[in-house]
Amino acid sequence: MEVRTLDAPTLLAGDTDSLLQALEQWTAILGRDHVIVDAGNRAAAETATFETSQTIPAILRPGCLEEVQECIRIANRFRIPVYPVSSGKNWGYGSRVPVADASVLMDLSRMNRILDFHEKLAYVTVEPGVTQRQLFQFLQARQSDLWMDATGSSPDCSLIGNVVERGFGHTPYGDHFAQVCGFEVVLPTGALTATGFSRFSSAQTGSVYRWGAGPTLEGLFSQSNLGIVTRMTIWLMPAPEHFEAFFFQCNGPDQLGPLIEALRPLRLQGILRSTVHIANDYKVLAGIQQYPWEETKGETPLSPDLMSQLRTRLKFGAWSGSGGLYGTRGQVAEARRAVRAALKGKVDRLQFLDDRRLAFASRFAKLYQFMTGWDLSKTLELARPVYGLMKGIPTEQPLASAYWRKKTAPPAATDPDRDGCGLLWFAPIAPMEDRHVEAVVEVAHRVLPKYGFEPSISMTLITERAVACVISICYDRHEPGQDEQALACYRQLQREMIERGYYSYRLGIQAMSEMNGADGYAALLRTLKDAVDPNGVLSPGRYQPGSTKAIATA
Amino acid sequence: MEVRTLDAPTLLAGDTDSLLQALEQWTAILGRDHVIVDAGNRAAAETATFETSQTIPAILRPGCLEEVQECIRIANRFRIPVYPVSSGKNWGYGSRVPVADASVLMDLSRMNRILDFHEKLAYVTVEPGVTQRQLFQFLQARQSDLWMDATGSSPDCSLIGNVVERGFGHTPYGDHFAQVCGFEVVLPTGALTATGFSRFSSAQTGSVYRWGAGPTLEGLFSQSNLGIVTRMTIWLMPAPEHFEAFFFQCNGPDQLGPLIEALRPLRLQGILRSTVHIANDYKVLAGIQQYPWEETKGETPLSPDLMSQLRTRLKFGAWSGSGGLYGTRGQVAEARRAVRAALKGKVDRLQFLDDRRLAFASRFAKLYQFMTGWDLSKTLELARPVYGLMKGIPTEQPLASAYWRKKTAPPAATDPDRDGCGLLWFAPIAPMEDRHVEAVVEVAHRVLPKYGFEPSISMTLITERAVACVISICYDRHEPGQDEQALACYRQLQREMIERGYYSYRLGIQAMSEMNGADGYAALLRTLKDAVDPNGVLSPGRYQPGSTKAIATA
Repeated sequence: MEVRTLDAPTLLAGDTDSLLQALEQWTAILGRDHVIVDAGNRAAAETATFETSQTIPAILRPGCLEEVQECIRIANRFRIPVYPVSSGKNWGYGSRVPVADASVLMDLSRMNRILDFHEKLAYVTVEPGVTQRQLFQFLQARQSDLWMDATGSSPDCSLIGNVVERGFGHTPYGDHFAQVCGFEVVLPTGALTATGFSRFSSAQTGSVYRWGAGPTLEGLFSQSNLGIVTRMTIWLMPAPEHFEAFFFQCNGPDQLGPLIEALRPLRLQGILRSTVHIANDYKVLAGIQQYPWEETKGETPLSPDLMSQLRTRLKFGAWSGSGGLYGTRGQVAEARRAVRAALKGKVDRLQFLDDRRLAFASRFAKLYQFMTGWDLSKTLELARPVYGLMKGIPTEQPLASAYWRKKTAPPAATDPDRDGCGLLWFAPIAPMEDRHVEAVVEVAHRVLPKYGFEPSISMTLITERAVACVISICYDRHEPGQDEQALACYRQLQREMIERGYYSYRLGIQAMSEMNGADGYAALLRTLKDAVDPNGVLSPGRYQPGSTKAIATA
Repeated sequence: MEVRTLDAPTLLAGDTDSLLQALEQWTAILGRDHVIVDAGNRAAAETATFETSQTIPAILRPGCLEEVQECIRIANRFRIPVYPVSSGKNWGYGSRVPVADASVLMDLSRMNRILDFHEKLAYVTVEPGVTQRQLFQFLQARQSDLWMDATGSSPDCSLIGNVVERGFGHTPYGDHFAQVCGFEVVLPTGALTATGFSRFSSAQTGSVYRWGAGPTLEGLFSQSNLGIVTRMTIWLMPAPEHFEAFFFQCNGPDQLGPLIEALRPLRLQGILRSTVHIANDYKVLAGIQQYPWEETKGETPLSPDLMSQLRTRLKFGAWSGSGGLYGTRGQVAEARRAVRAALKGKVDRLQFLDDRRLAFASRFAKLYQFMTGWDLSKTLELARPVYGLMKGIPTEQPLASAYWRKKTAPPAATDPDRDGCGLLWFAPIAPMEDRHVEAVVEVAHRVLPKYGFEPSISMTLITERAVACVISICYDRHEPGQDEQALACYRQLQREMIERGYYSYRLGIQAMSEMNGADGYAALLRTLKDAVDPNGVLSPGRYQPGSTKAIATA
């Protein structure tokens, strides 16, 4: 991949005058430091984990609500598209790159205040720049008894960014969009709105009850280009009296279906209150190491035979999974019993782990290795971040897997965009039934190798009835031809999944065409967009039905 | 109250020609049987449980989706407002009476098909006419292992009607609006839309995952006048291995605050997974009997002194409550232990009841009475419907309390609208903290007696953080002057609650002004309404900001 370094004149080719005038006005509001136009920073922002061609003429960094409003008003004045990001770490889905070419990036990371916190009612109110790390440290500093839910991406990801994209995590609050309320939103015209009771300044209930009175509007502002969320209340969970994780492993690829059938009742009955994560062998391997270039003599993709050998050697299964048990000691013991009974005969290994056992194992890992020959510390190294996520502790670990196909080790400060990590995520939802997850796996296992990629899959039991299947197309952008292969692979994967009825829960900037423009939903959304954004300045094309431009340019 | 029986000429005074033409076209579509214009039926539909003046020129009864679409298209053609109801049993909030005068009523009760049902994934897809009773019988007939959540109103209430008004019930699925997905909606123009993945005909996931991809629009169609919901998937819960109810009682009025403080952690920690209901003495008494006219020699309101005597005599507390425990036997035992520990010293009585004990008690009630003098069968009679609701069994029982102030017993077939039962509900949400629930109680206890009404209150721990407080203004519409008193009382109650920040979760047709028109939410909603309903034909004024007309006429 070449990193494009475009000069200002090239960039401002379109309507240079308007842009220059707008830049002048933005600079008057934000100051020179927060209107970024240098080629290096722009090129970095124009770089995602897959090929894109969209240019970014400038980056705006408003520091407060009023600046956001003023910036968008200026954008309206000059009809310049603005594309807001919170932390912009939307890896695998387009990072900071706008859907429409020549959009000005609005980076909200400076708005990073924690505005409200309530220990008893268990919530926190944040701005878009507040990161997972920041909230975690805030809770620790206060010795709070509350746990956050963390998504398995960088600790530096924005909380709001993840919620509005409807990301998920690992605790009972894992379906992020279900655990929030009280949005403050800047509309595309610059007008301000608020959702639920938070719209009433006198309300006592803006942060404790989501629906308010009258139409409930949070949904409008998730995965959308209808407004900029500048504030949100996120509910937190009280630390349970006891927490215990369980890890399981299936040696046979065919065990997934029966496993899902065994887990669904536990999820529906509330015995498992949190998301359960299941990963296939390719996904696990990418968490342990980079691509085995030596062993494969540089051949890709990794053959099923070698994968099978690696499974045996590294002691993991065709499917590996984990979940958390939360409650009183008695409740957890009871849930453990139920999990054990349900998974009997379905898995080849099942282990329960709590703080005490984890500390014990860490202490005696060396002794254990001496006695058994098994390097327990390796297992613990793998288990610890997952274990932490189930307790709401953010981790850097999953990010390293973006370097899977790179030929050098991940740097200390990872940055998949900068480092040419190729990553495309397709994340179809499947009903929580054997035949559906099996169908998704069949397509992924057939399509990805055809294009030279490993079918790396994770399956998250995100709600009581739905599985979010994340399929990673992981490659090295510095390898010639791979960018094209990856996008071609994505398109076939998307097409085949859609044919079978498995639509993704979240779309990359290159895939907004999945929002097809032919149905009543699409028509309604166009009506709403036209009404709230008459000049079409806010994130054109983003989750906007009938926007086929992006996929056409890909 | 006089029942107004207006003749057609009076009704059609406005734009008679348009209405006559529209009636002709509606009749061509629906047939004569389903366009109701006779004075008796219209007058019945114009009657709520409080005074209203809105007239209904006709009632349309479409039988299918296409007829709904065609009816609303005709309404657009002639600019005639249409007000859809599902079963129309919105007692206490306006029943079937439209917010705007001269609206044609659209009664959706003929659309009563159960369109889809999935035992394993635990959902049902229904039309607006499907009632609680119908679903309950459907599940029984199939010997399904699934439980529905029932609201404590008539078994003949529409499921969809209750969901779109964001009603609540008694099981872990008690926050109804959180347990649904896949709406099919007729827009005010007659266009069709669908939410979530259900908009894709090929999708496998329309009924199992709510958010879909792109903006989530369910919220737009709840408590709104933006569309007519013609289909919806409702999630059901699997019957737990074991169910147990608990009932508690506090003798002192001041015990409410500490009780709420004790219950909140149980709710937040997921030990109590269902809504918990708490009622004050007035509320309980209205469930047991009608107003004690003899004992009070016809005086109203019921004095605190007599209330206190009745409490002692009838053996109930200042506050009585109930909740359900759901899970495996072990989980329920553990939850019972936790509830017992948390409520120790907070309540004066705590009883657990399961199917076995209920059967046993019923069998030995007579013997028990003989031995102890306590009429257990009376207690059981009261407990049984609540117990049933916690298992998703609809009951007629709570409806009888609408006859509290009547001087004759409720008829076998109750109908609060027809029978002149006066009922206004104000339902503020309070944060789940002692000081907030105490503040709500203080206002209700002060304001209602001032107007001659008993401060009847129920408090539902509807989510982990919020209490829905339902305050009933209950009276006899046949008593002169009471209608005016009740509305005056409502207005003061609303005003004082709002001043303190306790906004209601749901609004009566006379109270839409709570949707004040000054904030950004109101402005946005007006923009959306104008965009989707250019002729303003759908339920004008309903949850529409800035609509002060209704309150002005009241």
